Amino acid sequence: MATNSLVDIKKLSPKFQDLYAKTKDFVENDCIPAEKLFDLQMGKGENRWKIIPPVLEELKVKARSLGLWNLFLGKTYAEGAGLTNVEYGLIAEMTGRSKLAPESMNCSAPDTGNMEVLAKYGTPAQKEKWLKPLLDGKIRSAFAMTEPRVASSDATNIELNIRREGNEYVLNGLKWWISGAGDPRCALYLVMGKSDADNESKYRQQSIVLVPADAPGVTVVRPLPVFGYDDAPEGHCEIVFKNVRVPLENIILGEGRGFEVIQGRLGPGRIHHCMRAIGMAERALEYMMVRVTDPARRTFGKGLYQHGTIISDIARSRIEIDQTRFLVLNAAQKIDEGNAKGALKEISMAKVAAPNMALAVLDRAIQAHGAGGLSDDFPLAKSYAGARTLRFADGPDEVHISQLGRNELRRVDEIRAKFESQKEKSRALLAKL
Amino acid sequence: MATNSLVDIKKLSPKFQDLYAKTKDFVENDCIPAEKLFDLQMGKGENRWKIIPPVLEELKVKARSLGLWNLFLGKTYAEGAGLTNVEYGLIAEMTGRSKLAPESMNCSAPDTGNMEVLAKYGTPAQKEKWLKPLLDGKIRSAFAMTEPRVASSDATNIELNIRREGNEYVLNGLKWWISGAGDPRCALYLVMGKSDADNESKYRQQSIVLVPADAPGVTVVRPLPVFGYDDAPEGHCEIVFKNVRVPLENIILGEGRGFEVIQGRLGPGRIHHCMRAIGMAERALEYMMVRVTDPARRTFGKGLYQHGTIISDIARSRIEIDQTRFLVLNAAQKIDEGNAKGALKEISMAKVAAPNMALAVLDRAIQAHGAGGLSDDFPLAKSYAGARTLRFADGPDEVHISQLGRNELRRVDEIRAKFESQKEKSRALLAKL
Amino acid sequence: MATNSLVDIKKLSPKFQDLYAKTKDFVENDCIPAEKLFDLQMGKGENRWKIIPPVLEELKVKARSLGLWNLFLGKTYAEGAGLTNVEYGLIAEMTGRSKLAPESMNCSAPDTGNMEVLAKYGTPAQKEKWLKPLLDGKIRSAFAMTEPRVASSDATNIELNIRREGNEYVLNGLKWWISGAGDPRCALYLVMGKSDADNESKYRQQSIVLVPADAPGVTVVRPLPVFGYDDAPEGHCEIVFKNVRVPLENIILGEGRGFEVIQGRLGPGRIHHCMRAIGMAERALEYMMVRVTDPARRTFGKGLYQHGTIISDIARSRIEIDQTRFLVLNAAQKIDEGNAKGALKEISMAKVAAPNMALAVLDRAIQAHGAGGLSDDFPLAKSYAGARTLRFADGPDEVHISQLGRNELRRVDEIRAKFESQKEKSRALLAKL
Amino acid sequence: MATNSLVDIKKLSPKFQDLYAKTKDFVENDCIPAEKLFDLQMGKGENRWKIIPPVLEELKVKARSLGLWNLFLGKTYAEGAGLTNVEYGLIAEMTGRSKLAPESMNCSAPDTGNMEVLAKYGTPAQKEKWLKPLLDGKIRSAFAMTEPRVASSDATNIELNIRREGNEYVLNGLKWWISGAGDPRCALYLVMGKSDADNESKYRQQSIVLVPADAPGVTVVRPLPVFGYDDAPEGHCEIVFKNVRVPLENIILGEGRGFEVIQGRLGPGRIHHCMRAIGMAERALEYMMVRVTDPARRTFGKGLYQHGTIISDIARSRIEIDQTRFLVLNAAQKIDEGNAKGALKEISMAKVAAPNMALAVLDRAIQAHGAGGLSDDFPLAKSYAGARTLRFADGPDEVHISQLGRNELRRVDEIRAKFESQKEKSRALLAKL
Repeated sequence: MATNSLVDIKKLSPKFQDLYAKTKDFVENDCIPAEKLFDLQMGKGENRWKIIPPVLEELKVKARSLGLWNLFLGKTYAEGAGLTNVEYGLIAEMTGRSKLAPESMNCSAPDTGNMEVLAKYGTPAQKEKWLKPLLDGKIRSAFAMTEPRVASSDATNIELNIRREGNEYVLNGLKWWISGAGDPRCALYLVMGKSDADNESKYRQQSIVLVPADAPGVTVVRPLPVFGYDDAPEGHCEIVFKNVRVPLENIILGEGRGFEVIQGRLGPGRIHHCMRAIGMAERALEYMMVRVTDPARRTFGKGLYQHGTIISDIARSRIEIDQTRFLVLNAAQKIDEGNAKGALKEISMAKVAAPNMALAVLDRAIQAHGAGGLSDDFPLAKSYAGARTLRFADGPDEVHISQLGRNELRRVDEIRAKFESQKEKSRALLAKL
Repeated sequence: MATNSLVDIKKLSPKFQDLYAKTKDFVENDCIPAEKLFDLQMGKGENRWKIIPPVLEELKVKARSLGLWNLFLGKTYAEGAGLTNVEYGLIAEMTGRSKLAPESMNCSAPDTGNMEVLAKYGTPAQKEKWLKPLLDGKIRSAFAMTEPRVASSDATNIELNIRREGNEYVLNGLKWWISGAGDPRCALYLVMGKSDADNESKYRQQSIVLVPADAPGVTVVRPLPVFGYDDAPEGHCEIVFKNVRVPLENIILGEGRGFEVIQGRLGPGRIHHCMRAIGMAERALEYMMVRVTDPARRTFGKGLYQHGTIISDIARSRIEIDQTRFLVLNAAQKIDEGNAKGALKEISMAKVAAPNMALAVLDRAIQAHGAGGLSDDFPLAKSYAGARTLRFADGPDEVHISQLGRNELRRVDEIRAKFESQKEKSRALLAKL
Repeated sequence: MATNSLVDIKKLSPKFQDLYAKTKDFVENDCIPAEKLFDLQMGKGENRWKIIPPVLEELKVKARSLGLWNLFLGKTYAEGAGLTNVEYGLIAEMTGRSKLAPESMNCSAPDTGNMEVLAKYGTPAQKEKWLKPLLDGKIRSAFAMTEPRVASSDATNIELNIRREGNEYVLNGLKWWISGAGDPRCALYLVMGKSDADNESKYRQQSIVLVPADAPGVTVVRPLPVFGYDDAPEGHCEIVFKNVRVPLENIILGEGRGFEVIQGRLGPGRIHHCMRAIGMAERALEYMMVRVTDPARRTFGKGLYQHGTIISDIARSRIEIDQTRFLVLNAAQKIDEGNAKGALKEISMAKVAAPNMALAVLDRAIQAHGAGGLSDDFPLAKSYAGARTLRFADGPDEVHISQLGRNELRRVDEIRAKFESQKEKSRALLAKL
Repeated sequence: MATNSLVDIKKLSPKFQDLYAKTKDFVENDCIPAEKLFDLQMGKGENRWKIIPPVLEELKVKARSLGLWNLFLGKTYAEGAGLTNVEYGLIAEMTGRSKLAPESMNCSAPDTGNMEVLAKYGTPAQKEKWLKPLLDGKIRSAFAMTEPRVASSDATNIELNIRREGNEYVLNGLKWWISGAGDPRCALYLVMGKSDADNESKYRQQSIVLVPADAPGVTVVRPLPVFGYDDAPEGHCEIVFKNVRVPLENIILGEGRGFEVIQGRLGPGRIHHCMRAIGMAERALEYMMVRVTDPARRTFGKGLYQHGTIISDIARSRIEIDQTRFLVLNAAQKIDEGNAKGALKEISMAKVAAPNMALAVLDRAIQAHGAGGLSDDFPLAKSYAGARTLRFADGPDEVHISQLGRNELRRVDEIRAKFESQKEKSRALLAKL
């Protein structure tokens, strides 16, 4: 990556370069070597949801001591490291290489997005109570939006009911795919629901409220597996909210402003996901290359890499990774130059391209490993499962493709006018014949 | 499927039609409704490998009473139902719809291939001891070929050592991805190993011996997960063979004849896999269609099926399923007309096409279900994992593609001669100008 | 092809087998060797549209003497050879190998469809005047439907005006892509236009009338090129109809019955196109295989076929050709068993699959030939251009995909009911727990 | 494009910005409107190769007066405009939108590469005689490398014989696909041939000599069409060299240094091709968007853009164009930072990605136009033909893919070492358990 010229790491700020080098070292020499130990320290059976492997807390201590902490928080936040989205994007790519890196550096979803929301929209009291321990890595959090009974890729469909009653909100409804809610340290949910179903604007019917995970009426029903992975201890959970009561001051930004909050939340987070997917793909390509050149693995008299389509798969992967990285960094740069709203088109492009690219590269790497590639002896299958969820997370491909297409079509009147003018000039030239 | 004309079910034998109709009814009305119960009856923790859900045995009783038993065994076997490969292929497609159907009908891999081997090459004593209980559904079996330390897609690389010592063979080596070996009922392994490493023909160095699962020195080390699924109770296991001793009469067909056995074994089995993959794809398409027309799931003012690419995904899936089915049935027909060896090309084509098609259709169906499609609330994600293994099972895509390409090139001399003759005729015509 | 088992040529009627063998011999030994002579005999400049290369008439004489004449006309026509659609489909595949074969055997579009229309719907007088010389190969014809100013993939948009005036119809309008209209022998147009714009049914507004090519008011404006090919002498022409008058008896079937006619016309013709596309693809694959094994063409120390992806391209082409052929023959068989209307779904599948497959195979063959593959030294580039038009001819891919998808969705209520019943059975089983 | 952030035009040099704005205006308002006039001014029949449409010379005059002349020549050349490769790349993209723009600005292949060779390696006399009139736009030139009888994608196969005889070189051989050789203004060929077949290094056997187009013994045999386009007046020609004699001083750089010359020549030229392909794709996307929103083109009650996959095609095109542009500009930037040799990998990536992307976008645009898209009423079909040649020009995809894959594998030892070190660290951690 350091060799890409359009985004030349050597030209970025010295602060970034220092953090980037440290991150690289930390990921490659601390996180990746700790992955097997983490797996062994995982609890068995129900304990999978109760025990946090100690090595993770050790990595957190080390990361923090190195200054690799909360790097995701950009310039606009007092608490932040002051990195641009491009700079943090490059760091996120690096952390995408190891499943242990993001949390070790307190940069893992969904906490990052939740911390951004609290930092941006939280009241001083909300910040004190929730943002502080989150920034400290003491607690974790979840974002509860998706519901099983409606097509929640259109968020206006969301049904969880938020009713004002005296000085409390009362929540009733069902959520699922709430990532992180299985973690014993998860103390806070940001819950999106319908607080004003009759509002004439579909985009003013929703609110987001803060719900302590231990609030009466909250029941985590079950974790949902991704392919066969339960992703313990975080998990992706189904949660029932039954007459859950929270004080009115737990609202974020104000009633009816749920859409405003999620719009503000999603831009940079999508970039992080995309860049981590690129990191996954780079690691997968490394695994593939090491495998196909393994002198012990020869078939029909040749090294695997000398057969048919393997070299071509490597070359295509190289192309696809690099062109996708540019697309994502471009979106990051666009956010840096303005804001996430102005970069909607670029973010959509990145959001569609990166997970699909990662899946293609991972699938080739799996294939090069034989059946072993599907097991957990290599990080490929789990990465595949993770990358597959990204085609839904923060909106399915279809929604982004459709928005992007319509966005692009906004140029069409201008183009049509240009075409008309060109035709007129053409006719004028022909008229002289 | 009944509407496809090239292979019109109504024109096949009345016996087949009866069995086909019964299979369809059994799969749709017995197996599929029992799937959730099966999951609930599964053991927890270590018991996953010890308990066989009772509903499975009930289904076996019912299938057997309906005559839906051992249908895979073709005409050439006394014990068989006398179905052709095309006929059994169509039944296998039907069984591919439910994970419970193949075993319920005693038609599940790897038992089917093992029973074929025993029926074809077994001595009377081997048949009595192993084939009989297998045909009876009393025991299960595994086929131990793949090894972790070599590229075993080229079977000449296999290293497990088979040494003759007195009136015994002594086996030492390591196998993995031994499907079915986790099952408490698995009583027999067919083990491929190197018995004559110095034989000048690479294809005469291997033998296959029968090893009781409880033989001293056999250790099932662990099950290997497929995308997080352990596929308990069968599992895909790593097994150590350490000084495992079996009597000389446990050899199949004779020393050095391992390749002969696996060649004979693989043809029809590949057809079964492919047809079951088609059944999976058909069921996935049904799920997709039901989902996208669900009146409760509307986004942005439209039903899902009215959006963008969904209709196109359905149409393409229909095309891909149908053309793949023809390819597989064609290979089955080719085997029926001669033998598996003569149908090598057709089998390779089917073997490459069917799993890749199924994966594409399943992936679209998953996408149409949102994140839920990746969970076990629907049969899609697990089917995807299963279909993904088929791109390795019985040889990876790459090996089949390469064999097929070289096979096709055998025609080239004849074509070149035709081209030369055409050019000569062309020159003769021009000469008259 | 003779080796495909699902459609085993040896099992078809002896009459077919005789015609098939003769066709094969005629195409390979007469048509293909005559291609270069045909090119040389083509006129230069404006003469391209005036001269029919003599070798074509010689080939017609030979084909007719062999009984290879009007084979497209099926059993239902007195004039026909009595072949089924499957049988003629196989013959059409063979004729697709040479650009000279279809017309030599009086089996080329659009004459075939026009002859079918006249045979099926023509009055005795229409048959005598137009069908007879067409069947005789004395004249040629065109079908004038597509218009430049509307989206004529939806035929209800067609605007050419047909006005009844006394005992005449008066035609005014513009058509383009009228294939065959450039041919000096083209004597007849079947013209679709709007005769009753106010009819409440959009499908009753259109009529088809017979227009002699030399009728006053008809002007062939220009041929339209396809990727630079003008396809002289037939051409794909733009035609102005200005106050063109024909007698009332020139109507086909009756006023307002245009849709009825085109529905009846298109089914078998689409099969012919598809099968010829398969023939093109087979010939392209032959060219590719001969090229990559050419001993004079070695790069970097290896034969081309020993490099990377070439073998894979050959293997994939083999798979794609075969599975597409089955799809098309299946549609033909479906027509044979009922009629084109009942085979709508199968025809759509074939119509989408075959041209796209042919383009993929042709593109690989071109690539294997280097730049030469794009020239006319090989038949590949012209075939590519021809196959590319098939993605529009008789409806663009998009229309077929959309129809097919909606057609498939008609099953959804039945599937949903099945799912509900399965869920109920499942619940009943769980209730016993 | 101006909105892409990674390469923000507003941050590039003011000189570039001025030239870029002028180029854009010139292309959109002068070149594109002149395209139809150019076509009408083309000669007919043989005159296609004799007449240069006057409008082209008028455009050249205008471009030169605007300072839009020889912009391709970079900083390192005294004659150059001093633009970086990134800067000129962006201008090349703009010129790729109109077939008239590159030559109007004296920036068309193969002259650009030839001028670079002469500027870099030419003697003062060679420069005076050939470079000067080329820079002046008075003559044109060709580069004669490809041969019909060998696989010239491996340039060591080239066979044209260059024999030293007294103070002359004598050339004998056959070339084809010599672009530009049909142009009546083409005065010079740079001919690559074998001057020392016995040299032990395969890469020292070739030389390049300057051959006046009117040298005795040179015969332009025929133009080769691309699909059906002859690309007159430039053409892609087959040329016989029969005892062609040139003085010894016509050698470029020295005997046996042919490879050195072509290596130096190809880097930037490939970038130009790629960027022009991107310009083609952008224009195609504009055509597609205007077409599918044309209010006159509605089918089945909807605008085309409201149907199924059209929006998705637009969105995917947007993604593919943008990510490819970044890849190409990255290669340009890499050249700017060092030299073409150091950017070999990046150039290969761009060279594979850009033409394939352009073909995909063009094909979708063609499809959206119906059959008209294949004609010359729109610039799409001709652009497609042009872009298709780029998959061969300067090396076929396969060669670049293979080089890129092997290039990437050079990293593998380092990665393997890293993996080993990580495993060791992992084992050390586990040992503490």
